[in-house]
Amino acid sequence: MAQPLNHSQLEYLNAALNSGELQQVRRMMNGGLKPADVAHLIESSPPKIRTLLWNMVDQDNEGEVLQYLSFDLQESFLREMNAEELIAAVEHLDIDDLADMLQHLPSTIISEVLRSMDQQDRERLEQVLSYPEDSAGGLMNTDTITVRADISIDTALRYLRWHSEIPAMTDSLFVVSRKDVFIGILPLTRLLVSDPNISIREVMITDTITIPATMPDTDVAKLFERHDLVSAPVVGDDNVLLGRITIDDVVDVIREESDHSLMSMAGLDDDADTFSPTLKTARRRAVWLGINLITAFIASAVIGMFEATIQKVVALAVLMPIVASMGGIAGSQTLTLMIRGQALGQVERSNMGWLLNRELLVGLLNGVLWAVVIACLAMLWFKDITIGIIIASAIMINLIAAALSGTMLPLLLKAWGIDPALAGSVILTTITDVVGFMSFLGLATIFYA
Amino acid sequence: MAQPLNHSQLEYLNAALNSGELQQVRRMMNGGLKPADVAHLIESSPPKIRTLLWNMVDQDNEGEVLQYLSFDLQESFLREMNAEELIAAVEHLDIDDLADMLQHLPSTIISEVLRSMDQQDRERLEQVLSYPEDSAGGLMNTDTITVRADISIDTALRYLRWHSEIPAMTDSLFVVSRKDVFIGILPLTRLLVSDPNISIREVMITDTITIPATMPDTDVAKLFERHDLVSAPVVGDDNVLLGRITIDDVVDVIREESDHSLMSMAGLDDDADTFSPTLKTARRRAVWLGINLITAFIASAVIGMFEATIQKVVALAVLMPIVASMGGIAGSQTLTLMIRGQALGQVERSNMGWLLNRELLVGLLNGVLWAVVIACLAMLWFKDITIGIIIASAIMINLIAAALSGTMLPLLLKAWGIDPALAGSVILTTITDVVGFMSFLGLATIFYA
Repeated sequence: MAQPLNHSQLEYLNAALNSGELQQVRRMMNGGLKPADVAHLIESSPPKIRTLLWNMVDQDNEGEVLQYLSFDLQESFLREMNAEELIAAVEHLDIDDLADMLQHLPSTIISEVLRSMDQQDRERLEQVLSYPEDSAGGLMNTDTITVRADISIDTALRYLRWHSEIPAMTDSLFVVSRKDVFIGILPLTRLLVSDPNISIREVMITDTITIPATMPDTDVAKLFERHDLVSAPVVGDDNVLLGRITIDDVVDVIREESDHSLMSMAGLDDDADTFSPTLKTARRRAVWLGINLITAFIASAVIGMFEATIQKVVALAVLMPIVASMGGIAGSQTLTLMIRGQALGQVERSNMGWLLNRELLVGLLNGVLWAVVIACLAMLWFKDITIGIIIASAIMINLIAAALSGTMLPLLLKAWGIDPALAGSVILTTITDVVGFMSFLGLATIFYA
Repeated sequence: MAQPLNHSQLEYLNAALNSGELQQVRRMMNGGLKPADVAHLIESSPPKIRTLLWNMVDQDNEGEVLQYLSFDLQESFLREMNAEELIAAVEHLDIDDLADMLQHLPSTIISEVLRSMDQQDRERLEQVLSYPEDSAGGLMNTDTITVRADISIDTALRYLRWHSEIPAMTDSLFVVSRKDVFIGILPLTRLLVSDPNISIREVMITDTITIPATMPDTDVAKLFERHDLVSAPVVGDDNVLLGRITIDDVVDVIREESDHSLMSMAGLDDDADTFSPTLKTARRRAVWLGINLITAFIASAVIGMFEATIQKVVALAVLMPIVASMGGIAGSQTLTLMIRGQALGQVERSNMGWLLNRELLVGLLNGVLWAVVIACLAMLWFKDITIGIIIASAIMINLIAAALSGTMLPLLLKAWGIDPALAGSVILTTITDVVGFMSFLGLATIFYA
C-alpha cells in the first residue's frame, strides 16, 4: 500500500542525492512516490538540486508533478520548455489548475496553449481566464455534471454509467434548466439512497449555497469552512451555472490566507519560497530593512531632541529602550488579534466600539501593573525616586497609545485599501517608539530641568 | 435560495439588537440563518450580547449551533446547562464533534452523557475519547460505510439503498475483510460508473493512503492537503479499520495550525478569542509583557555597562536603537521563514546547511548595504567619521548574528521540544538587542577611549 512521504524518506533521498546514486532517485521520482510527494521533495530542496530533480521526472509525469508545485516554481520550469513540451506537460490538467499556471506566463505562450486545445476546452479555459485569479471565477473548474429536474433517479444513474469516469471531488450533480440556469443540487449520497422511480425534482436540494463568479476567493473560503462544503456551484448573471469550486482548491486559499498575515507582518511575500536563491532573497529583504530604517531614524530623531537631558542623566539612555519595547510588544499583541479578527470576518464597525474600549482598559490595567514593577526596579537600580515616577508615567502613556493604535490602525488601513498585515507593524512600531521616547525623555526634561 | 451571512446582515442584526427589536433577531436565529452563521454571529459579539443571543436559540437548534462554536464558547455554554439539557443538545452531533466538546468538560458530565447513549454509540465515543484530541484517533468519526470485496457492484448499490441516509462527506466506501482489516476504497464516483455485474475487488483502489490512529493531526492535515483527500480511513494495529477522517475537520486543523504561528509569535493563545472579556485578556497579556520585560532589562543592563562612554558621546544614545532594531527586523524575517518552513515540513536536517549558508550570505549582503547607508547618514548628522565606522561595523555584526540565530533557533528549540513560534521571537530579540548594543557601545568605548 502506498505510504505517504515521510521524514526518513526525505533524508534517504537526500543521502542518495549526496552520494550520487541518481538511478535510485530517478526510480523514486517516477513511480515510487506519488506526484504530490515528488513536488514536495522538489520544493524542499535548494535551487541546484531542484533543477536536478525536475530533470529526472519523466516527461509523462511532468504535468502531474507540475500542478502540485508553487506558482514560482511552475513558472520557472515552464519557461524552460518549448511550446511543444509545455502543451504535452499540461494537456491532462484540470482547467482551473491550467488557468492558474498560465496566468503567470507570457501571453504568447497562453495563446500557443489555447491554440492546441479543442474548441470546447478552449472556450472553458478562456472563460476561467477572464476572471481575476483571486475570484471565484478564477478558482472554478468547468467539469460539472449537470442533470434536468424532470428525469428519474434511475435515468440519472444510467446516465452516469455512460461516463468512463466522474471528475474527482464530485459529491453532487447540479440540476439546471434547459437554459443552464442553476436550480439545485443532488448529492451523490442522496442519489444512492433514493427510490429509482421518483424524479430528481422530488429529492434535489434547492436551499443551497451558490457562489457568484465575482466573489473574492477569501470569501469563498469562509463559505466552505463555515458550511463544510466539498464542492459548490459557481453562477454568473441570471443564476446561470458556470462551473464549480472544489475543497482542494479552497484549502490552498485558506493556507495562503493564513500564511499571508504571518508572512506580511514580517515583511515577507506570501509566496516567499523557503529555498529561493541568495540574491533574490537579499533583494526582497533589503526593501523591508530600508522601510524599517526610516522608522528607526524617526525614533533617533526624537531621542536627538533630548541630547542635553541625556547628557545630564545618563540613566535615561539605559532605561529608555524599556519604554519603547513594552509599548511595541503590547501594541503588536492588539494588532495581531485585530488582524486575525478581520481575516475571520469577526471585526465589523458595529463591534469596534466594544473592542476599542476593551483594549484601552487592558492597556490601562497592564499599564498600571507594569508601571509599578518597572518603577520599583528602576528606583532600586539608580537609587532615584524621580526616575521611577518618570518611567512609570511613560509606560502608562505608551501602553495606552499602543492599545489605541493597535486597535484603530487595522481599521483605518483597511478603509484606505492598505493591507494591515503588511503596513500595520511598521506604523505601530513608529508610533510606540516615538510616543515611548517622547514621553519618557520629555517628562525627564521637565523633572530634571 | 439561502444566501450566506454577509456584512450587511451582521450590521443589520447589530442594529436590531441595539434598538431592542429582539423578536426580529430571534426569528433570524431560529430559521432565518443557517446554524453555522448563527454561530459566527455569536462569536463576533461581545460577551453580554453573546449570552443574549445564545439564550434566543431554541433548544432544538442548540446542538446544531454548538458544534460550529469555538471550544471556549462551547465549554462556557455547556457548563451552564444541566445534564438533561446537555444530553438533548448533543444527541444529534457527530461522534468526533461530540468527543471534541466533551474533552473540555468535567468527567462527571462525560459519564452522564455516556450513560445516556445506546451501547454502540457509547463504545464508539469511548474509542474516540481514548485517543488524544490532537491525533488522528481524536479527529476521526466512526460513521464509515464498509463493504466486502467479493460482492458485486449491483449488490453494493442495493445495500446502499437500504440506508435512509448516507453520512455527509462520504466520498468512498471502505472495503474490509471479515475481521475488519482495511483492504481498499471504492470511491462513489467509481461505483457509479462501474459495470453492475463485476465484483468490488475488480474496481476497488488498494494503492491508497491509510492513516494510523496515532498520527498527529498536523501530519494528517499535510496528507489531506498534499493528496487532495475528502475522506481517508483511520486504521489501528494490524490495519484494522477504526473510522475515517473528513476534510471539514481537517480544514479546522489547517486553520488552527496556521493561526498558531501568527498568534504564538505575538504571545497570544491560538484560541484567543477576539471578544474575550477584559480581565481574562489583561491577565493573559500581562504574562507576555512580563517575559518581554526581562528581555528589555537584559538589554538595559548591557547599555548600563557603557554609561561612561555614553556620557562622553551622547550621539551614541541617539543612534544605538537603530543597531538593535535593524538586527531585530532582519532576525524576525529569517525566523518567520524558518517557522513557516517547519510548519510546511520543508525544513529538515539535510537542507539546514544550505539554508544557514544562504541566510548568512543574505545577512552579509544586507549588512554591507545598510552599514554603508547608515554610516553615511550618521556621519552627515553628527559630522563625525568615527561614529560612521563604529555603527557600520555594529550593523554588520548584528545582521550576521540575526541571520545565525534566526536560522538556528527554530531548529534548536524544536529539538528541545520548545515551540519555536512561541519562544523564538523573545529569544531572538534578546540576542539582537544584546549583540547590537554590545557591539555598538563596545566598539565606541574602544574608539573613543
